[in-house]
Amino acid sequence: MITDHLKKKFLEIVGTENYDDSKVGCLVYSYDATPQFQSLPDAVIAPRNAKEIADIVKLCNEHQIPIVPRGSGTNLCAGTCPTEGGLVLLFKHMNRILEIDEENLTVTVQPGVITLDLIDAVEAKGLFYPPDPSSMKISTIGGNINENSGGLRGLKYGVTRDYVMGLEIVLANGDTIRTGGKLTKDVAGYDLTRLFVGSEGTLGIVTEATLKVIPMPETKQTILALYQDIEAAARSVSKIIASKVIPTTLEFLDQPTLQVVEDFAKIGLPTNVQAVLIIEQDGPKEVVKRDIRKIAEVCTAEHAVSVQVAESEEHAMALRTARRSALSALARLKPTTILEDATVPRSEIARMVNAINEIAVKYNVKICTFGHAGDGNLHPTCPTDSRDHDEIERVEKAFAEIFEKAIELGGTITGEHGVGVMKAPYLELKLGKEGIAAMKAVKSAFDPTNIMNPGKIFAKESRKRVVVTK
Amino acid sequence: MITDHLKKKFLEIVGTENYDDSKVGCLVYSYDATPQFQSLPDAVIAPRNAKEIADIVKLCNEHQIPIVPRGSGTNLCAGTCPTEGGLVLLFKHMNRILEIDEENLTVTVQPGVITLDLIDAVEAKGLFYPPDPSSMKISTIGGNINENSGGLRGLKYGVTRDYVMGLEIVLANGDTIRTGGKLTKDVAGYDLTRLFVGSEGTLGIVTEATLKVIPMPETKQTILALYQDIEAAARSVSKIIASKVIPTTLEFLDQPTLQVVEDFAKIGLPTNVQAVLIIEQDGPKEVVKRDIRKIAEVCTAEHAVSVQVAESEEHAMALRTARRSALSALARLKPTTILEDATVPRSEIARMVNAINEIAVKYNVKICTFGHAGDGNLHPTCPTDSRDHDEIERVEKAFAEIFEKAIELGGTITGEHGVGVMKAPYLELKLGKEGIAAMKAVKSAFDPTNIMNPGKIFAKESRKRVVVTK
Repeated sequence: MITDHLKKKFLEIVGTENYDDSKVGCLVYSYDATPQFQSLPDAVIAPRNAKEIADIVKLCNEHQIPIVPRGSGTNLCAGTCPTEGGLVLLFKHMNRILEIDEENLTVTVQPGVITLDLIDAVEAKGLFYPPDPSSMKISTIGGNINENSGGLRGLKYGVTRDYVMGLEIVLANGDTIRTGGKLTKDVAGYDLTRLFVGSEGTLGIVTEATLKVIPMPETKQTILALYQDIEAAARSVSKIIASKVIPTTLEFLDQPTLQVVEDFAKIGLPTNVQAVLIIEQDGPKEVVKRDIRKIAEVCTAEHAVSVQVAESEEHAMALRTARRSALSALARLKPTTILEDATVPRSEIARMVNAINEIAVKYNVKICTFGHAGDGNLHPTCPTDSRDHDEIERVEKAFAEIFEKAIELGGTITGEHGVGVMKAPYLELKLGKEGIAAMKAVKSAFDPTNIMNPGKIFAKESRKRVVVTK
Repeated sequence: MITDHLKKKFLEIVGTENYDDSKVGCLVYSYDATPQFQSLPDAVIAPRNAKEIADIVKLCNEHQIPIVPRGSGTNLCAGTCPTEGGLVLLFKHMNRILEIDEENLTVTVQPGVITLDLIDAVEAKGLFYPPDPSSMKISTIGGNINENSGGLRGLKYGVTRDYVMGLEIVLANGDTIRTGGKLTKDVAGYDLTRLFVGSEGTLGIVTEATLKVIPMPETKQTILALYQDIEAAARSVSKIIASKVIPTTLEFLDQPTLQVVEDFAKIGLPTNVQAVLIIEQDGPKEVVKRDIRKIAEVCTAEHAVSVQVAESEEHAMALRTARRSALSALARLKPTTILEDATVPRSEIARMVNAINEIAVKYNVKICTFGHAGDGNLHPTCPTDSRDHDEIERVEKAFAEIFEKAIELGGTITGEHGVGVMKAPYLELKLGKEGIAAMKAVKSAFDPTNIMNPGKIFAKESRKRVVVTK
């Protein structure tokens, strides 16, 4: 609880205009993009710099006030839902790109920078920041780092983790540390940089980041392959990679998703096929041309009913936009949309897609599947209604079975969305008791009083996955 | 101390043939490739599988016996010197490549596999494992993982960390955990995989690893640029990258190194220039050709006195081999060779090389500098004699100043060799007290009884860097 005395101290740190404990102010930050989770914070605070954050953290540590660092709240695991109250900490004043260093190929940013703003800023200099979560128009870099966000281009270029070179972090004890730097190679002690990437705000607060950028690929091309057989589509994915071509993106949409996306985007996508692959390659012109030809050959050999190269950048852009709008399109169907990201080795995609369809039938729920097939990172999505308790229970059971299947196939419960509150009950499936114990030891080492985004990653024993709380 | 009772238990686990506490057996493992460090273990043990390792660790934890996991002992930071006695744990029975998975582009190995054997095995299937530490002919993958080894190709392809996808680890409490998997994307909890990479055996024992491989580049070409001006060479490095070309390797040798290497390798390297850059590019033929032309243009514009493309693969191989033999060649000069790897952002290379030369003059010691200029990862190397206490003291002071300079330029005390015992006293320069405290908290979380390679990474207060112990 935040006493009047403590509130006064917070006000002294950030000023009255940057502290809000009004009912309406708190309500706005009581939830994030994850359906079914809501909980009021005690206050919302917007520090102006790392020093203020350190001062806030020291107070919170002393008084055991939870801190939930929050970018734009676009995460899909209830990672920024203040389930245990406390302070929601905003980065709206810390949203500057501090430096683009063209010699060292780095960009240094504050956590509040919008992902797309960063991408645009470096592209203006002929540089490329590959991680492209679907939420990139509104997500922040700080959020991306805390969730280790992926995106469509992860197949060829990796995820946020692969681009974080150094961090400034305020720890739970109020210490400020710097990890890494503008260094391709650095083995001075443990790799705290990558430990913090994807730690969901549970170990400390990232206050600055130095990110790697790479030269902008010269050109890109997009190809659309249509299938009447889902397994043939899935097989194409493995065959493309096994033929030693790594496309930038290799996206999969099943028929139900296709239908919904076309209704939404109206770009002339075929809706009478069972599955499509949208495949993009970038790089030097000669290489892109050759790779696209190889990809087309593989798709044809795997019985695609149509293989079509986008004839213009506008057409390619329309395809990309259609794919990126899958979640928004699906969200129009029903009041509640539950999107998951069970992930398997890419060789297991066909088996996984089949299993998802069987599970949907078994529990009589509608599940549309799309996702980053090249990564094995699928997004089975269920349009449902949280007021329909009977259906929600079946959805719950269906997803539990999907997670189990993913693990059985050598996969994971979450490829890029994070654990948060939502997937915490399933983490043991992937890690075992021993793995959870090891991670809890790390958490206690950094945050013995458990003020840093408490209630995330590690499940309370009895918690069920989807709970209609309020 | 290992009592007779405890010894009996170890023998029961591994069999008499895999336990050696003879004086001569222990002597062999009392040192590694690092000069000036030697300390006898109590015994040498060679388990045959992860289960045996878990059993050994449980006993060690109970009786507080240090364990030093050791591959081929090629590290240069005394990381595998058993400074506190205990068991040296060998992986000679755990040296199999378990699987090459061409669909998922992974290879799964036991820790004792020799790096070059792995590289050769995947290349036979048209796949590529880029990390190439200079010791790769004898180093093991387990050692590479524990030290996060780099190599020449780090500039374009990254280091060992970037290729480790999953690990099996025995923890200090005897638990066996699995991290990651054949998954491009996995955010199920903290990134323990990368935390263990580069942890120098201080957090647990890696018993299996799943590594990423990529398609083999089609072709490669090598270029040799000669300079009479070290700064011009250093400037070329930055300019090449800033021109949006990322070569596979971008190696630097100064005149003294050049002289020594040519005496050793006799391949007709010029010895009358101040510096050379050996630059390699790989990839599709058209791209390599174009990049090599661009690189040549930059070098010429930066006043290279000669720019020469290797006319055959044999010539290129000779250049690569010459570069790889730099340490062996330098080691012939004097009884003791101290090789460091202070690393700076690549934009600071000219300043760093100049600083090294000034420091060498100041302390009247010979320092030859070569290294991975594209990474900013330099290897200032001092041929000296550990029996000459006066000179060793000056060498000591010179390297201390080199580390300080690297940090001042935004660099680090070690780019790829690790901290071990040797650089522990300097770690605080890079991390600060707060950073060290955070890392110590991680160490305590995983290894509360401090049995895992104790005495490494974290310095004892009073320790000096170079101590002639025995």
